[in-house]
Amino acid sequence: MKTSLLVLVALLCAPLLSAQDQPAGDWKSASSNQAGHEYPKINAERRVMFRVEAPDAKSVNVSFHDTPPFTKGKDGAWYGTTAPLDEGFHYYTIKIDGGEMPDPNSRMYFGALRWGSAVEVPAHDEDFYALKNVPHGQLREIYFHSPSTNAEGHAFVYTPPGYDQHPEQRYPVLYLQHGWGENEYGWGQQGHTTEIMDNLIAAGKTQPFLVVMTYGMTNDTRFGHMQDFKIEPFETVLVKELIPYVDTQFRTLADQPHRAMAGLSMGGFETKTITLKHLETFSAIGLFSGGSIRPADITDLNAFKAKNKVVFISFGSREVEGGKTRRGDDPKADTAALQAAGINAHYYVSENTAHEWLSWRRDLQEFAPMLFKE
Amino acid sequence: MKTSLLVLVALLCAPLLSAQDQPAGDWKSASSNQAGHEYPKINAERRVMFRVEAPDAKSVNVSFHDTPPFTKGKDGAWYGTTAPLDEGFHYYTIKIDGGEMPDPNSRMYFGALRWGSAVEVPAHDEDFYALKNVPHGQLREIYFHSPSTNAEGHAFVYTPPGYDQHPEQRYPVLYLQHGWGENEYGWGQQGHTTEIMDNLIAAGKTQPFLVVMTYGMTNDTRFGHMQDFKIEPFETVLVKELIPYVDTQFRTLADQPHRAMAGLSMGGFETKTITLKHLETFSAIGLFSGGSIRPADITDLNAFKAKNKVVFISFGSREVEGGKTRRGDDPKADTAALQAAGINAHYYVSENTAHEWLSWRRDLQEFAPMLFKE
Repeated sequence: MKTSLLVLVALLCAPLLSAQDQPAGDWKSASSNQAGHEYPKINAERRVMFRVEAPDAKSVNVSFHDTPPFTKGKDGAWYGTTAPLDEGFHYYTIKIDGGEMPDPNSRMYFGALRWGSAVEVPAHDEDFYALKNVPHGQLREIYFHSPSTNAEGHAFVYTPPGYDQHPEQRYPVLYLQHGWGENEYGWGQQGHTTEIMDNLIAAGKTQPFLVVMTYGMTNDTRFGHMQDFKIEPFETVLVKELIPYVDTQFRTLADQPHRAMAGLSMGGFETKTITLKHLETFSAIGLFSGGSIRPADITDLNAFKAKNKVVFISFGSREVEGGKTRRGDDPKADTAALQAAGINAHYYVSENTAHEWLSWRRDLQEFAPMLFKE
Repeated sequence: MKTSLLVLVALLCAPLLSAQDQPAGDWKSASSNQAGHEYPKINAERRVMFRVEAPDAKSVNVSFHDTPPFTKGKDGAWYGTTAPLDEGFHYYTIKIDGGEMPDPNSRMYFGALRWGSAVEVPAHDEDFYALKNVPHGQLREIYFHSPSTNAEGHAFVYTPPGYDQHPEQRYPVLYLQHGWGENEYGWGQQGHTTEIMDNLIAAGKTQPFLVVMTYGMTNDTRFGHMQDFKIEPFETVLVKELIPYVDTQFRTLADQPHRAMAGLSMGGFETKTITLKHLETFSAIGLFSGGSIRPADITDLNAFKAKNKVVFISFGSREVEGGKTRRGDDPKADTAALQAAGINAHYYVSENTAHEWLSWRRDLQEFAPMLFKE
């Protein structure tokens, strides 16, 4: 009885407490924080609380919409709390007196065209991309000479557990692209490719395969328009330079049945364009929040059906509310049309996520087990 | 004649021009900048000019000493220029109204206990750590289960060019440690280990070997004193967990003659302590701005001489002005004493550098060719 009364009083008073006065137990440091940093913190409502030290600033805020201006706490630091956010990974900047700065409490991620801060709001299903005591693959940073760009190209290659112990074994390869404003670090860092693949393989849910992640040259459109993007320079790097390099440097199964391509957002556009042009190179296609494929997109349907094993089309649920994308496309209907045409097409919607990395981690988790089945 | 006059007028007027008015040709964007960012810029005097957008700020500066307060340029942004800096790699923060923030123009590096900004001042000998069109090794991110810390340990492993193409070949290993306030990313990022090793191997100046870089647990002294640091937890991870893991997962020559250890600053202290205790494990020792070894440090001189192949002791010249360290040690004399005792000891001074990464890159460049000679 006494306890119930205390609980009632606490519940009634809760809205009157400012965020930084709330019980510590309700707020947990974000996993995206720098080691040892308490803030940003997240509560059960998925509100994020920030702390910024800038004693002489006139105004402090964060780039999340609907966040009231920060206020100064008793310790002289500025505090502010967002409205509830979606589960998943969100880029942000701290605004100090009109300047947009990375939050010194956050680890740094490349997105929105810059290395800067982001916050990981815990997801109910975060276990699938958690680092666990399972056999681990390796994420390898490689450079490859690229005559077409007159530079040393940069990529990351995931090799599955046991790759070095089985020199007689050869592996299929997935080429996996980031989106516009991002780069080749994205899938290995915020994408958690290593953890997702290690966990899937440990659970026996997928064939082991290599994942190759390189820069999609998407950001060169920075000062132009997206529609001005030309696929040929990246297509040349990927098909003529990187794939031959990987097939030389790694023990790949270097043929069409054992090569897939997927990408998120603009990387999905790249995937669609390149795979439809290079049926002889890729046997599986994944578009993660990156458009869809209609039967009309396919020049020779019979050739496609003979060569393609999987088409995977997906969006975050917030991107297809009412079933349609903002551009008015209906990817579910497109997928059904592919299926009706005899193609092994799949449609997947990530629940309660938008155009961000939790959608794309789930896409990889769904797509990987469909690949390279005998 | 007319030209000479113009040059004379330009020379006379130069000191009157503010930094951002100086000819663009004299200022070059730093290689440590984020892609496409013009600032920070560096001139021939090795002054660094910063640009910060914070329209409503009262004061802006940078953490380099002797930098006058930033002033607002015609475009509303803040500009400031440092005094001439040493060649090499320097961490910094931008100060806005009393807050210390990462510079959004800089790539992010881990040092001084945080992911934050740094500037690379070009060195006259920068070619040895430049990325070139030579055969490339790989930098592999690995996780290893660590029972003693009840965690998945994190490390990077450099494998030399051709490692995957020669499955019959086995390789020696250098264990290479970062300093206090840094972590396992340092040697691969700002240390340029991959480029230094690739270039040395391409020039035939060193044996190919693996380089393993893990977290030295040095930052756990953050809230204590350096002298409270206990070596045993890291010694256990390194000797009992990581080395056996590497010897299982990679094609190493898993014996004392083919295993070396080196470290910078506090990593040098770790190297000295661990190698002197584990003569049966390591045959070569490198201390980079990390103390020295005297004959008196060695318990059994004959056993040491029988087992050790190389001792390498080094400092940046700014650290040993007048020949002595700030603590009053004389590492050159210590090295001479080791030599007199019959030990293959080497002393190296990096010219015109202090306690920073240009010293340590040069140390790796000098040390690597001494290792694993037949």
